[in-house]
Amino acid sequence: MDKIFYGTAYYDEYLPYDRIATDTTMMTEAGHTVIRIAESTWSTLEPQPGVLDFSHVDRALDAASRAGLDVIVGTPTYAVPAWLVASYPEVLAETSTGRGRYGARQIMDITHPAFRLHAERIIRALVDHTAQHPSVVGFQLDNETKFYDTASPAVQRSFVKHLRTLFDDDLGALNEAYGLDYWSNRVDAWEDFPDVRGTVNGSLGAAFDRYRRGLVDEYLGWQAQIVREYARDDQFLTQNFDFDWSPGWSYGLQPAVDHFSAARTVDVAGVDIYHPTQSRLTGKEIAFGGDMTRSIKDGASYLVLETQAQGQMGWLPYPGQLRLQAYSHLASGAFGVMYWHWHSIHNSFETYWKGLLSHDLEPNPTYEESGVVGREWAEHGQSLLHLRKTNRVAIMVSNEALTALRWFTLETGFIDGVFGSSIGYNDVLRWVYDALFDLNVEVDFVPPHVEDLSQYAMVVTPVLYTAPESTLATLRTYVEQGGHLVSTFRTAVADEHVKVWHDRAPHGLTDVFGMTYNQFTTPDGARLAPAGRLADAVDGTPEARTLLELLRPEGAEVLATYDHPAWGEYAAITRHRFGAGTATYLGTMTEPEVLRDVLGALLRDADLWSWPQDLAGRVTVRRGTNGRGRELTYLLNYSASTVEVPSPVTATSVLDGARVTEGDVLAVGPWDLVVLEG
Amino acid sequence: MDKIFYGTAYYDEYLPYDRIATDTTMMTEAGHTVIRIAESTWSTLEPQPGVLDFSHVDRALDAASRAGLDVIVGTPTYAVPAWLVASYPEVLAETSTGRGRYGARQIMDITHPAFRLHAERIIRALVDHTAQHPSVVGFQLDNETKFYDTASPAVQRSFVKHLRTLFDDDLGALNEAYGLDYWSNRVDAWEDFPDVRGTVNGSLGAAFDRYRRGLVDEYLGWQAQIVREYARDDQFLTQNFDFDWSPGWSYGLQPAVDHFSAARTVDVAGVDIYHPTQSRLTGKEIAFGGDMTRSIKDGASYLVLETQAQGQMGWLPYPGQLRLQAYSHLASGAFGVMYWHWHSIHNSFETYWKGLLSHDLEPNPTYEESGVVGREWAEHGQSLLHLRKTNRVAIMVSNEALTALRWFTLETGFIDGVFGSSIGYNDVLRWVYDALFDLNVEVDFVPPHVEDLSQYAMVVTPVLYTAPESTLATLRTYVEQGGHLVSTFRTAVADEHVKVWHDRAPHGLTDVFGMTYNQFTTPDGARLAPAGRLADAVDGTPEARTLLELLRPEGAEVLATYDHPAWGEYAAITRHRFGAGTATYLGTMTEPEVLRDVLGALLRDADLWSWPQDLAGRVTVRRGTNGRGRELTYLLNYSASTVEVPSPVTATSVLDGARVTEGDVLAVGPWDLVVLEG
Amino acid sequence: MDKIFYGTAYYDEYLPYDRIATDTTMMTEAGHTVIRIAESTWSTLEPQPGVLDFSHVDRALDAASRAGLDVIVGTPTYAVPAWLVASYPEVLAETSTGRGRYGARQIMDITHPAFRLHAERIIRALVDHTAQHPSVVGFQLDNETKFYDTASPAVQRSFVKHLRTLFDDDLGALNEAYGLDYWSNRVDAWEDFPDVRGTVNGSLGAAFDRYRRGLVDEYLGWQAQIVREYARDDQFLTQNFDFDWSPGWSYGLQPAVDHFSAARTVDVAGVDIYHPTQSRLTGKEIAFGGDMTRSIKDGASYLVLETQAQGQMGWLPYPGQLRLQAYSHLASGAFGVMYWHWHSIHNSFETYWKGLLSHDLEPNPTYEESGVVGREWAEHGQSLLHLRKTNRVAIMVSNEALTALRWFTLETGFIDGVFGSSIGYNDVLRWVYDALFDLNVEVDFVPPHVEDLSQYAMVVTPVLYTAPESTLATLRTYVEQGGHLVSTFRTAVADEHVKVWHDRAPHGLTDVFGMTYNQFTTPDGARLAPAGRLADAVDGTPEARTLLELLRPEGAEVLATYDHPAWGEYAAITRHRFGAGTATYLGTMTEPEVLRDVLGALLRDADLWSWPQDLAGRVTVRRGTNGRGRELTYLLNYSASTVEVPSPVTATSVLDGARVTEGDVLAVGPWDLVVLEG
Repeated sequence: MDKIFYGTAYYDEYLPYDRIATDTTMMTEAGHTVIRIAESTWSTLEPQPGVLDFSHVDRALDAASRAGLDVIVGTPTYAVPAWLVASYPEVLAETSTGRGRYGARQIMDITHPAFRLHAERIIRALVDHTAQHPSVVGFQLDNETKFYDTASPAVQRSFVKHLRTLFDDDLGALNEAYGLDYWSNRVDAWEDFPDVRGTVNGSLGAAFDRYRRGLVDEYLGWQAQIVREYARDDQFLTQNFDFDWSPGWSYGLQPAVDHFSAARTVDVAGVDIYHPTQSRLTGKEIAFGGDMTRSIKDGASYLVLETQAQGQMGWLPYPGQLRLQAYSHLASGAFGVMYWHWHSIHNSFETYWKGLLSHDLEPNPTYEESGVVGREWAEHGQSLLHLRKTNRVAIMVSNEALTALRWFTLETGFIDGVFGSSIGYNDVLRWVYDALFDLNVEVDFVPPHVEDLSQYAMVVTPVLYTAPESTLATLRTYVEQGGHLVSTFRTAVADEHVKVWHDRAPHGLTDVFGMTYNQFTTPDGARLAPAGRLADAVDGTPEARTLLELLRPEGAEVLATYDHPAWGEYAAITRHRFGAGTATYLGTMTEPEVLRDVLGALLRDADLWSWPQDLAGRVTVRRGTNGRGRELTYLLNYSASTVEVPSPVTATSVLDGARVTEGDVLAVGPWDLVVLEG
Repeated sequence: MDKIFYGTAYYDEYLPYDRIATDTTMMTEAGHTVIRIAESTWSTLEPQPGVLDFSHVDRALDAASRAGLDVIVGTPTYAVPAWLVASYPEVLAETSTGRGRYGARQIMDITHPAFRLHAERIIRALVDHTAQHPSVVGFQLDNETKFYDTASPAVQRSFVKHLRTLFDDDLGALNEAYGLDYWSNRVDAWEDFPDVRGTVNGSLGAAFDRYRRGLVDEYLGWQAQIVREYARDDQFLTQNFDFDWSPGWSYGLQPAVDHFSAARTVDVAGVDIYHPTQSRLTGKEIAFGGDMTRSIKDGASYLVLETQAQGQMGWLPYPGQLRLQAYSHLASGAFGVMYWHWHSIHNSFETYWKGLLSHDLEPNPTYEESGVVGREWAEHGQSLLHLRKTNRVAIMVSNEALTALRWFTLETGFIDGVFGSSIGYNDVLRWVYDALFDLNVEVDFVPPHVEDLSQYAMVVTPVLYTAPESTLATLRTYVEQGGHLVSTFRTAVADEHVKVWHDRAPHGLTDVFGMTYNQFTTPDGARLAPAGRLADAVDGTPEARTLLELLRPEGAEVLATYDHPAWGEYAAITRHRFGAGTATYLGTMTEPEVLRDVLGALLRDADLWSWPQDLAGRVTVRRGTNGRGRELTYLLNYSASTVEVPSPVTATSVLDGARVTEGDVLAVGPWDLVVLEG
Repeated sequence: MDKIFYGTAYYDEYLPYDRIATDTTMMTEAGHTVIRIAESTWSTLEPQPGVLDFSHVDRALDAASRAGLDVIVGTPTYAVPAWLVASYPEVLAETSTGRGRYGARQIMDITHPAFRLHAERIIRALVDHTAQHPSVVGFQLDNETKFYDTASPAVQRSFVKHLRTLFDDDLGALNEAYGLDYWSNRVDAWEDFPDVRGTVNGSLGAAFDRYRRGLVDEYLGWQAQIVREYARDDQFLTQNFDFDWSPGWSYGLQPAVDHFSAARTVDVAGVDIYHPTQSRLTGKEIAFGGDMTRSIKDGASYLVLETQAQGQMGWLPYPGQLRLQAYSHLASGAFGVMYWHWHSIHNSFETYWKGLLSHDLEPNPTYEESGVVGREWAEHGQSLLHLRKTNRVAIMVSNEALTALRWFTLETGFIDGVFGSSIGYNDVLRWVYDALFDLNVEVDFVPPHVEDLSQYAMVVTPVLYTAPESTLATLRTYVEQGGHLVSTFRTAVADEHVKVWHDRAPHGLTDVFGMTYNQFTTPDGARLAPAGRLADAVDGTPEARTLLELLRPEGAEVLATYDHPAWGEYAAITRHRFGAGTATYLGTMTEPEVLRDVLGALLRDADLWSWPQDLAGRVTVRRGTNGRGRELTYLLNYSASTVEVPSPVTATSVLDGARVTEGDVLAVGPWDLVVLEG
């Protein structure tokens, strides 16, 4: 790509009257270069089985062509038409709460043959119809695909067959691996296998979710294969990945898809990233989502297929924020930003998930600001494109740990909701990620099956609750060979079947950490007493949160103990030199500021502290090397006040062309930024 | 009617032993004049199919006759007998959560033929049996009728047939009007119409509710027709309407019935009104319910068929409150007050929804206070009866707007509960109503299809989110010809199909309001900066609530802007002279006191400020003209302290016969009142 | 028994590798004497229908035998195997929410013939296999048995047949007793009886629960009969009773079992008691559960079959607490304490309900502390065993009142959740129990059908909402003959059919209490104004809580009135001399401290105040007579600080053998205790 992708999802289908010429003109005036079409419009494309109507597609392609806009065509399968469900009700996923009703999207069993047959027909017809159009630059497969809690009898039968393979038909091995003796849950004949939806066995439940994440890989692979039969070589395939949405925005690791494995199917990783804005805009979600999406394709640039324009009720950007957000995506490595969506829809469900245009379809301040971005990008694209990062810090993330910690929550030890609620995997992941972000430490994400970590000076494993021996071996080798490992509480607790290890904790790593423990509990008022090199870095005795592992050092340096009448003898944070590296272990959670202080001290020890860390708290720094091979530095101001910082580099200020010498004072306005090249 | 209806619902069926003679004696001693019987006692009247037993009815009629009490006979249909459901389980409504179980009342499909057949038989038998009894003065049709979320296949088929008629069999028109293209929801063959219970389309969902409100009209009309075959000309037909009950009392507009259209069926509007009491007695619910019930029958007097005696756990009235409440109903235009119910029931479900008598069936302070009321009314009835009001202010209310705002809530833009909760239509309606009540401004309610508003000096439209063009035209004409229109945020947003208008907002009224906007968001800390004529009326910079519409004046005077770093350039409240009238627009919500100040300023401008407004905050004023053509003024003290006010009129104090001259100091005791005639 | 039972539940089945020799060695080293096996392991014992595998049982028996440990064998029936449900899905209980899914335990219909047939087969085989083993000292029948909300058609048919018997086939009598006329719920043909799960009739609903509690008695009796065919005379039968678990621990009376009647089936009452610990350890749950379990077998010693070792996340005991807890059980009359469970389980559901050993199966501080207990008990068992109590105070408890108050909650008058939530029966029971505990007053519990209360100087009836006339007569006689009765609000409200009495309240006891009332409400800010002998005992005007009964004395002394503008004339607490005794009535609830003051004053009046009450607030006193006929006094310190008290007796300090003279200062350390004998 030689220009930044900038545009919107465009639905000619949803517009109340014909205004496509006006719309494409407004787009080009705003510097837009691309639209995404057809995604989720199956019933318009095929109003009755086998009756095809590509008129909206053709209108969009023609108008785009005339306006010089590129087009990404989405397969329409993530929302099934009424006629399909009317004829085949069993296409609706049967979930843990039973069979749903037709209406929403993402409600089908993605393995059901009737769905697959009809989906294949419309995909073939649409891709065949559009692939040769010169404006079409790529295809999106489905949208925000997940497994939708499908648990039909057919899916369960196939899961049991998968288990037969996994355990080589040995039920005894399965009973032992999953601990099914407990509460009389043993299965001693395959045909007795109970409905998994009722299980209380966390190992079995987690295995079912892992299996179902595999269904997503298979489904996307199947779509990719079909589309590739038609697509030109210069057209890319992508998927719109999305994240755990629990607080109402793109928050953390996606529970229902393994992004690392699903991403193998596509040429380009696409993503949707939604986040709080206005006074709550911090840049964290944009950076988190971007770092993740870049990481799942080995550092390649990615495409933000959806992000908010005016968005939901509280997301109307303040002046400057839309532009700041757009640059923030590029600063994480995106090669394009596309809004969902061009126009606000006048009916149905997402009427108040607003597009770039309001319901009146006239220009408005948000659209105008998009034009500022578009024109800047047209001018400065070559400086901004093809950003590559060489981060020294990685965070290991695990779908399996996430799922396991829903069965055994951190604060209760039970399934969430039984005996109370608890924070989850993503809360700890974000606790770690956000602290590093606040320190201007950029990170990659790595999966548990990574084989070589040597490119990283520091690796953090937040709550890596469950992992195979091989992952633990990788971590051991990493430290031995000079890496700095930082693990939190509840790391290396259970094997890949979510069976808790029955030897000393943390399993297989007690010598690496120079520490062990076999008791843990909730805080009950405990605080941290910093010690050793943390004594200066951390103020006072901050609160210990979530849980306390009662660590007993065996060679490790104690960085903090518990300030508590009963647990004062135990360590809370330890650090150990092992081989050529170090291994730090956090036995409890803290308020964010304390973790920042702790990580800051560890970064200094590991010689990773540099000028971005000195700027932390004043301006957000994101860096990389652009397509011209020059160092690109973003200084982003996520605040309503102007910030003044000394320039960390001697460079050209991309957006105003000014020459900046290291040490010059740079003023970054409210919700504004500076990009330095060279 | 030449005397005030005063009495209770009486259930001889539920009493633990025969004491009907004692009861009717106690009633007449307390000045009661009427009882209501038979409502909800189907299984007693017809213990087995076709086996009739009117003994309790006959006992009640005989005892009433002996005691000189009038009787209202209720058809018993709102609670179905076990034998009906045992034989025809499908009589139970199939709702959005499936088919229920027998037990509660109001659980049937009011359209089901088996229900209708058996209901008709018992109605005919009961009315035939009682109509000629001289004590029977009227009939109540069913009770608190609603559509009970009925969504059986038969109801849905009939809804689809209704849509075929509405759209003249044109599915394309329906798809466009409802925006069904979105998320692939198009329907291109009528036989593909999906189960409406699953829909995510707010237009379709709202249409289904509107259709089902029509079922209530049809059902009540059907009962009315049957009863009228038997009723004497001097007997009235009524229905016990009730209100939105969301906080646990009669709170706002009823979502499941269109009272304006349903009221056409009956001769007399009946109503139940329940409300907080003790330290939380304000008179607002009594006034609100009364104003609504009077309005749905064009200002005619109405009958409070149910209100609390001792009521629920926290509703035992303080000394004086039962009497104050009783007069409050008359002050809104009621011609009678009936308690639910005479005696507290000893079993089942509403054992602690207590009657006038406690479970011991002996006199108690509440009963005694009822006697005070009864005797006063016997003496002063002619002063109090036939109250007519000629209010200068009206509030336009809309079931359609209420429903639409459940699909698109004010604070989230989504269905309530998806991405958070929100205040609803009735919260805004009550915000407006209560502020006017606090200002001693009495109001009528008008429906969206009102044709002429010229009798009103001021019309308020709280969140009139959806309305047909004709309603907007009526409002335009109203202002043009000199009316003072006050509209809140989210008025004139969508058409009658809940499709958001695609031109400038507020649709069709931008010239009337001299203002437009196309962006809005949540407050995020915004406050109001009063300006112009509001600068003096409103103190400080009060909080802006719920949402901010970013108003851009086009000729309007700005009465307030937003005090907010990003939105300071926009107006929050505007006022515009248009034709001979004015149009004020409130772009945000405020705390109640601020709205009172704003409305106060507008009332002064419109020359509507008079002495009741001067008394506001000290004593509640309710007025009208009584049957003798004299001005009747209630001064009601909803507080635990005595209040002294100068008499606003020269008149007779009805209850003590004293002559009062304008300006005389009147002391109104705690939870007490003064009624002035002439 | 000549030694204290001390041990754990042991599951060889769940262990990840063979370590039974190590385990039993660790047990004996810790002074353990007993294990419980086989409970809930049906699928291991019978992996396929009729295929038996007792290898784990044999391993455990052999190892126990070698180590000199006693064994309790549990029938495995409380968790059904997958194969049973696969063949007979209807074995799963059909509850108010429908049929569940296989997975959890306690999900079957305990009356289902397929369950009974297979349960009988495995019980017979297991007991036959183990009964003659010399290490087996007893059998546990099932586990924590309840009726699991079973409401299948068969159970409902049998319930209706039960009603036919109860009402002598007279439907009219049933309709009247239950008040089914209300809301048209009459049943006039037995075959019309509706699904009870939908009922809104509290009388019918309560009768169904009472009937289902009877199913538990029948089921346990059936198991007992089978086991007794095999058990030796020296082997006992027990059941593991448990309590209402609503806040997440053993909190109050069990709603689903009548412990008094179910206990008749067994030789020894067993119980599980779980409770907060760490900073929230108070001893109250241990004492409450112990007093209850002792009471249901007429004061006999009982066995704590389950209590926490490391327990749930927040239950890891502080140093000293495990020991203090163990002694606390003995102090209530237990003859043994068994932890659930030996080792922490590595998979499934209760992975974090931790045993004495952590997942690493190594010694840890909790295990070590258990060894301290075990060795002390081995040494001092003869002083501690066979404790008998002769308490002077009793609390009357009622399953029927508990159930009724779920239908008619104290604060709302409705089913919990309809129009708000409310505290329940057990909250009031614990309010009373805890106040007495805080006063060091030990109590027995008595059921409503107790015939003679003369052994007690004081009897308290917390919210005895429903009771037959006979119970009220027992209470009357008790007072008449010199007893001191203390009743709370909502006592003697309804008959045994939960029909509210229709005469003056409290029914049948107005002369006993010298008081009546017929109105009550919620507090709305009311406070208590102490009077008479309470004027000095209670400080200030404490808050009145939950509800106010407006008491009108008829001869009673007023101990408190309401401090409230409307209710000041009514009494809140009254006391009346009747016959040779007194009757005190509390018309409202208070904060715990106030109830303690009130009860303190009543104890002084009744001459029940002694030295334990003088020590109250400093140290917890529990007493009895041990097997050697000597007075045993426990001074327990549930706090983190050392407490010094004068010795109340001259005795031997059991644990250190010191001789103590009355008045000597005893220092009781944090979470420590002193036991005095003689």
